[in-house]
Amino acid sequence: MPLTATLADRFLECRTASESLCAPLETEDYVVQPIVDVSPPKWHLGHTTWFFEEFILKQHQPGYREFHPDFSFVFNSYYESVGKRVVRANRGNLSRPGVKEVYAYRRYVTEALTALLEAGVDEEITSLVEIGINHEQQHQELLLTDIKYILGNNPLLPPYVKGELGANLAAQEYAAIHNEAGDGPQGTDSNTPYWLDIPRGIYPIGFQGEGFCFDNELGAHEVLLQDYSISRNLVTNGEMMAFIANGGYERFELWHAAGWDWVQEEKVEAPLYWHHIDGEWYYYSLRGLQKVDPMAPLSHISYYEAFALAGSQGLRLPTEFEWEVAAASLHWGQRWEWTESAYLPYPGYKRADGALGEYNGKFMVSQKVLRGASIATPPGHSRPTYRNFFHPQLRWQYTGLRFAR
Amino acid sequence: MPLTATLADRFLECRTASESLCAPLETEDYVVQPIVDVSPPKWHLGHTTWFFEEFILKQHQPGYREFHPDFSFVFNSYYESVGKRVVRANRGNLSRPGVKEVYAYRRYVTEALTALLEAGVDEEITSLVEIGINHEQQHQELLLTDIKYILGNNPLLPPYVKGELGANLAAQEYAAIHNEAGDGPQGTDSNTPYWLDIPRGIYPIGFQGEGFCFDNELGAHEVLLQDYSISRNLVTNGEMMAFIANGGYERFELWHAAGWDWVQEEKVEAPLYWHHIDGEWYYYSLRGLQKVDPMAPLSHISYYEAFALAGSQGLRLPTEFEWEVAAASLHWGQRWEWTESAYLPYPGYKRADGALGEYNGKFMVSQKVLRGASIATPPGHSRPTYRNFFHPQLRWQYTGLRFAR
Amino acid sequence: MPLTATLADRFLECRTASESLCAPLETEDYVVQPIVDVSPPKWHLGHTTWFFEEFILKQHQPGYREFHPDFSFVFNSYYESVGKRVVRANRGNLSRPGVKEVYAYRRYVTEALTALLEAGVDEEITSLVEIGINHEQQHQELLLTDIKYILGNNPLLPPYVKGELGANLAAQEYAAIHNEAGDGPQGTDSNTPYWLDIPRGIYPIGFQGEGFCFDNELGAHEVLLQDYSISRNLVTNGEMMAFIANGGYERFELWHAAGWDWVQEEKVEAPLYWHHIDGEWYYYSLRGLQKVDPMAPLSHISYYEAFALAGSQGLRLPTEFEWEVAAASLHWGQRWEWTESAYLPYPGYKRADGALGEYNGKFMVSQKVLRGASIATPPGHSRPTYRNFFHPQLRWQYTGLRFAR
Amino acid sequence: MPLTATLADRFLECRTASESLCAPLETEDYVVQPIVDVSPPKWHLGHTTWFFEEFILKQHQPGYREFHPDFSFVFNSYYESVGKRVVRANRGNLSRPGVKEVYAYRRYVTEALTALLEAGVDEEITSLVEIGINHEQQHQELLLTDIKYILGNNPLLPPYVKGELGANLAAQEYAAIHNEAGDGPQGTDSNTPYWLDIPRGIYPIGFQGEGFCFDNELGAHEVLLQDYSISRNLVTNGEMMAFIANGGYERFELWHAAGWDWVQEEKVEAPLYWHHIDGEWYYYSLRGLQKVDPMAPLSHISYYEAFALAGSQGLRLPTEFEWEVAAASLHWGQRWEWTESAYLPYPGYKRADGALGEYNGKFMVSQKVLRGASIATPPGHSRPTYRNFFHPQLRWQYTGLRFAR
Repeated sequence: MPLTATLADRFLECRTASESLCAPLETEDYVVQPIVDVSPPKWHLGHTTWFFEEFILKQHQPGYREFHPDFSFVFNSYYESVGKRVVRANRGNLSRPGVKEVYAYRRYVTEALTALLEAGVDEEITSLVEIGINHEQQHQELLLTDIKYILGNNPLLPPYVKGELGANLAAQEYAAIHNEAGDGPQGTDSNTPYWLDIPRGIYPIGFQGEGFCFDNELGAHEVLLQDYSISRNLVTNGEMMAFIANGGYERFELWHAAGWDWVQEEKVEAPLYWHHIDGEWYYYSLRGLQKVDPMAPLSHISYYEAFALAGSQGLRLPTEFEWEVAAASLHWGQRWEWTESAYLPYPGYKRADGALGEYNGKFMVSQKVLRGASIATPPGHSRPTYRNFFHPQLRWQYTGLRFAR
Repeated sequence: MPLTATLADRFLECRTASESLCAPLETEDYVVQPIVDVSPPKWHLGHTTWFFEEFILKQHQPGYREFHPDFSFVFNSYYESVGKRVVRANRGNLSRPGVKEVYAYRRYVTEALTALLEAGVDEEITSLVEIGINHEQQHQELLLTDIKYILGNNPLLPPYVKGELGANLAAQEYAAIHNEAGDGPQGTDSNTPYWLDIPRGIYPIGFQGEGFCFDNELGAHEVLLQDYSISRNLVTNGEMMAFIANGGYERFELWHAAGWDWVQEEKVEAPLYWHHIDGEWYYYSLRGLQKVDPMAPLSHISYYEAFALAGSQGLRLPTEFEWEVAAASLHWGQRWEWTESAYLPYPGYKRADGALGEYNGKFMVSQKVLRGASIATPPGHSRPTYRNFFHPQLRWQYTGLRFAR
Repeated sequence: MPLTATLADRFLECRTASESLCAPLETEDYVVQPIVDVSPPKWHLGHTTWFFEEFILKQHQPGYREFHPDFSFVFNSYYESVGKRVVRANRGNLSRPGVKEVYAYRRYVTEALTALLEAGVDEEITSLVEIGINHEQQHQELLLTDIKYILGNNPLLPPYVKGELGANLAAQEYAAIHNEAGDGPQGTDSNTPYWLDIPRGIYPIGFQGEGFCFDNELGAHEVLLQDYSISRNLVTNGEMMAFIANGGYERFELWHAAGWDWVQEEKVEAPLYWHHIDGEWYYYSLRGLQKVDPMAPLSHISYYEAFALAGSQGLRLPTEFEWEVAAASLHWGQRWEWTESAYLPYPGYKRADGALGEYNGKFMVSQKVLRGASIATPPGHSRPTYRNFFHPQLRWQYTGLRFAR
Repeated sequence: MPLTATLADRFLECRTASESLCAPLETEDYVVQPIVDVSPPKWHLGHTTWFFEEFILKQHQPGYREFHPDFSFVFNSYYESVGKRVVRANRGNLSRPGVKEVYAYRRYVTEALTALLEAGVDEEITSLVEIGINHEQQHQELLLTDIKYILGNNPLLPPYVKGELGANLAAQEYAAIHNEAGDGPQGTDSNTPYWLDIPRGIYPIGFQGEGFCFDNELGAHEVLLQDYSISRNLVTNGEMMAFIANGGYERFELWHAAGWDWVQEEKVEAPLYWHHIDGEWYYYSLRGLQKVDPMAPLSHISYYEAFALAGSQGLRLPTEFEWEVAAASLHWGQRWEWTESAYLPYPGYKRADGALGEYNGKFMVSQKVLRGASIATPPGHSRPTYRNFFHPQLRWQYTGLRFAR
């Protein structure tokens, strides 16, 4: 019983955290989808709720009555097993259900699941709730980055939070927002050597402990690594400013062919959210426009930019294995760090049966692995074995890099 | 003084009417843009306000201080003369300014212009206010049709108004909504002949009276028409149902080449808002889903469909001149009626100087003229010489047709 | 008999003319399709042949055996009635049938039809052969303009004909090529007034004589025209050079909204085939790159450019009716002249039954009428009532303009 | 001297082989580009020639005069370092230079380089010629697959070679064409176990011997592999027929999300070149349409299909390392075999300086590795360490797969 009791608490804490992230929003901010990758905040609130309803309540709560017969259609993301769904690009075209109704949906499901948990649940349900919580935490990070995109691409550049950060934000968001604009020094003093050197050897990879992990971390196995060095610090804004000043965005030889096409077509000249005003670089942060801090870790770059920036210094990105082996000796967690690794299954990887088998495996092609976590990652959601993944051109997450050689 | 007094009253009445149209909306409904042609309601509210601010207050009210320095950028529609603007397709990506701020903007400008009018204005300003009122009336019709599109393409199919229509709607909207789903018989009794026959002759065309008209109606001139007949009634839903039943959407020989491509690509099988459910035709109206009334005038069709439907009966569409000459003998005003005429300048047409010269002239290519008015047209906004125009594939307006031969 | 004898002669002359136009080509030139509007020359040769085979030989020659069972699929252009066809944009993807086989196909059909004609034919077949000849003549003009596009958009800019024009070209092509680069003075001396003034009146429009015309010219009828003036000369290259020098391509107020979008998207800065080299304007002609002759009639412009150029001088384009009424007093035939008229049916227009009914009527939407003829029009193919039509952005034909006011 | 003598012989043999592959073509076949990935054969002939001219003759042959000043523009493929180039999608729009001129270009460069080689060359030039030969060999394979695409997507389905294969084909092509349609049994008898089992261990990867290899094979290093099994035989057509019969193309759970989108959008229902006629499967081969041989190795599939097919049997694709370690015990060379590995740099990989540095490195993102070789690979061009790579949806190469578990 104490275990499920704790689970109920953690479930409630998770549900509250999503809502507290939306507290600073105007109703209108919940609705829009400026690019296909950025979902409307009310969609995130509804989709994470639907996940609990669809996979737990409908299956395991006898007599459960779904909140609305059409919400499965509206809030399914990509689960083909579960039936039809709104095309992703159409999420921002739906004014209904409205924000109030989505919150009512949340309360309805939160209460039903709380009741279920309090009545005591078996291992299978426990495991599904764990997945549901971790799923919602992933969407909390997306909520914050999607909100940033929605506001930061509005010509009025409204801040997400103004003035003093205060009582209306949970502790976890406070930290994210507080640090976002300039995270300051990275915790290594000037006596620490720049490079961390790791010798050739056979190293364990993948999740092996107790507790929750995603299926893509399983299949713990050993890899053979050659001698390598990895930088203790994240690459800074100042290094990007030098890259720009040296014509990095105009030098094709630094880029992948696909990256160079992307730079040309999208007319990319700086990281996302950077603005060049009167000869100085500014950065849209959750608190509004601020001067770029050259000491802060670089953020909002694509894999293509990370690769070109490393190459311009004769360096490279680490692989995800090099990163994982070094992780214990690194300060990490401020930026999702692009690695050179493609997102591929570990040896012995198997999709789970049923709809949840669609969670990770079907994306294992043409994407790059990011390791670490970011200031927008919910507390308790990060692990050294965590494998995040995105297409190489995307940069609306808090993405950065670390050098290797 | 009485003239401007009346103008101020009419100005206020117009401003109020726009807002009353939005009274049934949820905040979220103000924001979305499901297709490029459909603008968010809050954009209409802001844009019509910007029109008065930009072309009257900024130019003619000494000491006027604009409400917000960025609103010109946000709410300009297509006036290249006035500076940069949000790309049309991006209107639905902007959560800010929010609905409350847009209403505050409206109040600010309404009050400033009221003060200007009450102080007495010259002929030039009077004329600009007249244009501004007529411009806002055009957007009132778009507001209603855009709202219908936003709600009618939502999978939940929410009605615009529920239950009894009541106190919260101005008289003018009441009529529109009341009639929209099924407008009932068209006012001609069974003794009236179907065709109205007009003999060959020279007829006057264009606006000649007192009062307001748009520049595209000016240049009154004579045209020579041959003998023709025009139907007294609009084509009905029942005729469209027969067209569908006879395979009209599959018979290429009835269509223009471009129309046939459109039917294939868009998989068009019925008018917009029609749903085939259990073997019966339903229609999304502002009051929700209703059975199609076979006696009511057909609505929400493209020019391509109008042309094919007429051709399937061995008939054709009237030209805009044939329509205008017959108008005095017709009941019209329920549907915008597609004509066979292309939208072209009348003899002697000249664009006005400056930004307002962009109002009509620059659209005079590749569009078709529609004549009449619709149940969504504000009272007092219609004239027999009025020239509406749209691209041939568009059908989210209340568009219908009348036969000629 | 003499009538069909003549028809056979004219048929043969027409067939020979198409082939003589292709005489200067390399085999490779017959194959490519650089833009969707430009068909491979071998396609034109095959398609015009297919027209005679499909509509005459297969229907009216007992025992006729088609040349190849798949050629109907390969060489049908847009006749939905006749069955499936290669998508237009794919014509340039077909290396087979090869040029030799296409010529064999031509011979086969030419001989079969000659035999049919020599045996004597009735009025229906005579009429079909007339259509077939006129159809092939239209494709002769397209052949020449498509060849020009294929060569003139090749980075090597190869000329179509080199050196002296000689024995290998038929008289008709000789004229076209000879005049193309600079057609010289337009036949009006300096004593002739610039404007031709036409008084208000009722004028006949449409084809009424003996002989061949297309169905879109029929339905002769009267129109009422107001007083107008039309320029005796075509607009010259020199006037376009002044338009460019005065920033005409950067002044949005001169353009239609759709035209302005076209200029921006396509980065249009001059007529097609114009090259700015070391501060001077050059023009790709069928004989290669030549200096632009400021006295020669302007060519290769879109309707949008014609409209903007006229507007920049406070003038306008004539309507197709104004043009037709004035035609007897004009020198015309060097350029297809854009008019302000949209391509619409004349009163009483009826599509013919069957596949040939698809010839003209189904294109009567969103296109503009051009009047006159060009240096590439085959001799005997032009009439004052001829109605050519293209979409407003197209300019690979020999298109020009004449002012009206 | 003997080394360069041999080099000259091998150079000439390579040049001749390209031309002999084109011997069965009609001139028209040299010109077209039905999809962007398929280049016109004359482009391949010119581009491989340009490579020798640009990187060797222009740099190292004193007094060398280039054949044509514009050919560098026309025949450059993707070398940004070397200057401007024809956009890839435009290659099929160029009728000139014609086939005869391209052959003249070939002769000119072949003779100049032969002269250079016969005069004796240093190690740098030797190395460049080696690259040039291997580069041309890669294009020989593309020539054959592009020709197959050009002919196999023509509605006439013309064979590449007819009747008996004979004297006009070099030995190497003979083999390819002879085997292509049905390669017959795969050389393993019924006593051989299906699986080859490889124990966990540290294995060497990458090129280490003498002779030529590409830069992407260098950086020999060790990898740690877990126990695995790999199938001795390639997957057969029969297994694909069973996959289709079992609804494999309709079962989303077998596919990557991107693969499923591809199946839906492209309406994929079978491998490329397969035709379902009267209930039987046919296959377009270089000798024309033939019945699918269920025993022959499957060909012309995408990575997505390979992955889905393996998954449908509860199996997977090998990694490129698993493949390389097993290669010595496998019969390989009939199909390029999709692996699960993404195309990434080996440890220590460095791009070469200058234009040749663009050869491989800049494509190391979003592509999959294929191992082995195919019946279209020139003799002497394959190695167990060879790394071929393509985007996951491409299937016009002779691509197949082998299972692992």
